[in-house]
Amino acid sequence: MKAEIIAIGSELLTPARLDTNSLFLTAELNDVGIRVIHKAVVGDIPGEMRSSFSHAMESADVIVSSGGLGPTDDDRTRETVAELLGRKLRVDDVILQKIQDRFRRLGRPMPEINARQAMVIEGATILPNPRGTAPGLWIEAKGHILILLPGVPQELRAIMETEVKPRLLKLGLKQRLYTRELRVAGLFESDVEQRVSPLYAAYPETETTILASPTGIQLHPRIWSEDRAKAEAMLDEIVKRMALALGEHLFSTHGETMEEVVGRLLVENHATIAVAESCTGGLLAERLTTIPGSSAYFLGGVVCYSNELKTSMVGVPAELIESKGAVSAEVAAALADGIRKRTGATLGVGITGVAGPSGGTPEKPVGLVHIALADGRATSAAVLRLPGDRERIRQFSAQRALDLVRRYFLFPSPGRA
Amino acid sequence: MKAEIIAIGSELLTPARLDTNSLFLTAELNDVGIRVIHKAVVGDIPGEMRSSFSHAMESADVIVSSGGLGPTDDDRTRETVAELLGRKLRVDDVILQKIQDRFRRLGRPMPEINARQAMVIEGATILPNPRGTAPGLWIEAKGHILILLPGVPQELRAIMETEVKPRLLKLGLKQRLYTRELRVAGLFESDVEQRVSPLYAAYPETETTILASPTGIQLHPRIWSEDRAKAEAMLDEIVKRMALALGEHLFSTHGETMEEVVGRLLVENHATIAVAESCTGGLLAERLTTIPGSSAYFLGGVVCYSNELKTSMVGVPAELIESKGAVSAEVAAALADGIRKRTGATLGVGITGVAGPSGGTPEKPVGLVHIALADGRATSAAVLRLPGDRERIRQFSAQRALDLVRRYFLFPSPGRA
Repeated sequence: MKAEIIAIGSELLTPARLDTNSLFLTAELNDVGIRVIHKAVVGDIPGEMRSSFSHAMESADVIVSSGGLGPTDDDRTRETVAELLGRKLRVDDVILQKIQDRFRRLGRPMPEINARQAMVIEGATILPNPRGTAPGLWIEAKGHILILLPGVPQELRAIMETEVKPRLLKLGLKQRLYTRELRVAGLFESDVEQRVSPLYAAYPETETTILASPTGIQLHPRIWSEDRAKAEAMLDEIVKRMALALGEHLFSTHGETMEEVVGRLLVENHATIAVAESCTGGLLAERLTTIPGSSAYFLGGVVCYSNELKTSMVGVPAELIESKGAVSAEVAAALADGIRKRTGATLGVGITGVAGPSGGTPEKPVGLVHIALADGRATSAAVLRLPGDRERIRQFSAQRALDLVRRYFLFPSPGRA
Repeated sequence: MKAEIIAIGSELLTPARLDTNSLFLTAELNDVGIRVIHKAVVGDIPGEMRSSFSHAMESADVIVSSGGLGPTDDDRTRETVAELLGRKLRVDDVILQKIQDRFRRLGRPMPEINARQAMVIEGATILPNPRGTAPGLWIEAKGHILILLPGVPQELRAIMETEVKPRLLKLGLKQRLYTRELRVAGLFESDVEQRVSPLYAAYPETETTILASPTGIQLHPRIWSEDRAKAEAMLDEIVKRMALALGEHLFSTHGETMEEVVGRLLVENHATIAVAESCTGGLLAERLTTIPGSSAYFLGGVVCYSNELKTSMVGVPAELIESKGAVSAEVAAALADGIRKRTGATLGVGITGVAGPSGGTPEKPVGLVHIALADGRATSAAVLRLPGDRERIRQFSAQRALDLVRRYFLFPSPGRA
């Protein structure tokens, strides 16, 4: 079965807004065996909307729209679809009562315009909205299923989960989408592509999407299948072969973030961590503490932008900064070891670098970052020469620092990483 | 003039990927006077693609596509459009030469499949690609302009800027889009809507989009007009009236972020800042240091998750933590004053709270956050009871802390904010 998703709203045609509801809707549709073959965004203009619905009905079995069910003159989805299907609109007294009740509970009179939200297309099934006033509508017409949902994400989600999905499951579609999510650190997207693409030919039933971001490159292999066991076995096999091709750069085979992996390794090894950051400005601490329960292993961090603070708060000798420069392997190591000692953590991480856009020199250009990890016996280190802007440099540095911790636990030979 | 944007690629129909090129394309098209009336996403399937292009040609004057110009079998945009227009494809020797040269410079032989990228639709103008192998194509047919661009964002941007925009400017369209970007802190989206929506009726030519995020609610009023002076004057008037309605909650009328506003205020007031954060885990320091040049006013920060670090690094008396609890107004104030003293900064900010999901108690539930700002004479403070998950609680807390600094400078009455 094939679906089209139509997002309605003129604001979604500006440079400021994206339709993100369609990601959730796609996941939910895939989950019951329906593929999304087309997505559209249209403004609140009846002619445009009619043209989109009519185009969708040429190829899709299921059409899901979001938006245009509000109370104002701009909200024309109901009228447009009714007209397209040649059906009448009627006021539904039950819905009207519910809307009035809702306003009464909020202690406000119902504005007259909200009565429009009680308009229903003839023959439609009403999908109650637990989070707002506009119900969704389920319409079967001309061999298609049309599902009209409000555009407010929390309302759309609630109706989709409680009303739409159970009805779609009753269609009894046998095909399902099976997926995995692999995450990779320390390689460029093109390197990842080069390593895994030779596998594609061996698994023609599988499609793989590569998604690059500063927090790791994601690989999403996916298979549509009626046979769960067979699909899962094939995905396991693909993941195993991808893992071989990616080696130590693969940090997760089921969508864990780098900070989750590092947190798990710290817990498993009964270790604690503290960080001293300069150019990343708190980003490393922020990522470590994103994880619920991170207080079990994250002791604390210092963001020492100034040289004085590197000395007073982390104990980096002023002479060392003077002789080697604040951005140096030696100062990174002293930050790592200093924060470890001051906090009593098992591991200390230090980062110092030039995030730019200014502050670079021929010897120490923008993008030069030194990272060190200290455990009281040895220090492992990385030096990065990163392209890109300030944001990108900071993000890659924090990611590399976390990866240094991961590699410390997984490949514990001294001096490694 | 009206445009439709078509994004091509099956990966854009998965729950993992959004077409983001269309935001950039929309801004560029608006900039030369062309409105976007429809956006579509289609897979790499020729039938689907043909149907999308053909639907677009029913209502749009300009059709811009992204994707499907690569070298593989999946890349079918050229063939599909040629067939739809009833035109032939031919190999362009100049492009072929360029692609071969590019591979030679990279020290690799050109794979045979890349020759497909030299295929050109009859009568098309070739738009050279400075960043990759696939050129764009500009085709005038049946009263429409079709612009085929590669999907790789940096390639699409380069061709759009250097080749497409100058050609579109030559169309001499008089209408332009004029916009403003207002940002608001400390109000819910519905409050903002309620305050500004009475203005809409007075300016029917203007459309306003509201965009909510943890870093502030954005208001984008916009006008299409042929008269620049008139449009700008009207926007100035609207902004002035919105500013009155929003009061002290408005922190920018031209799209500045909160950290930019705070950075500017610190510089203007010759002040420096240091922060001591618990539940936000480095997020406040991270946001302050996002700004290039922030080292001029940001001295440093401490992320003190443990009570021991609150005492050893920031000097919060252990008895105070014992008697009032780590999450208390008193400890927030001691963190703010302690970090100020330890770093010698003009201002210190302290944050302590329960970000959850665990760690809450009936007296101190998840979402309770205390924030304090100290300047050595007085302390201003805020106590928040935030709904939502860990991420949301951390983000709103950091935003509120920054807003406390903004209000300190703008409304300097003691005890205020």
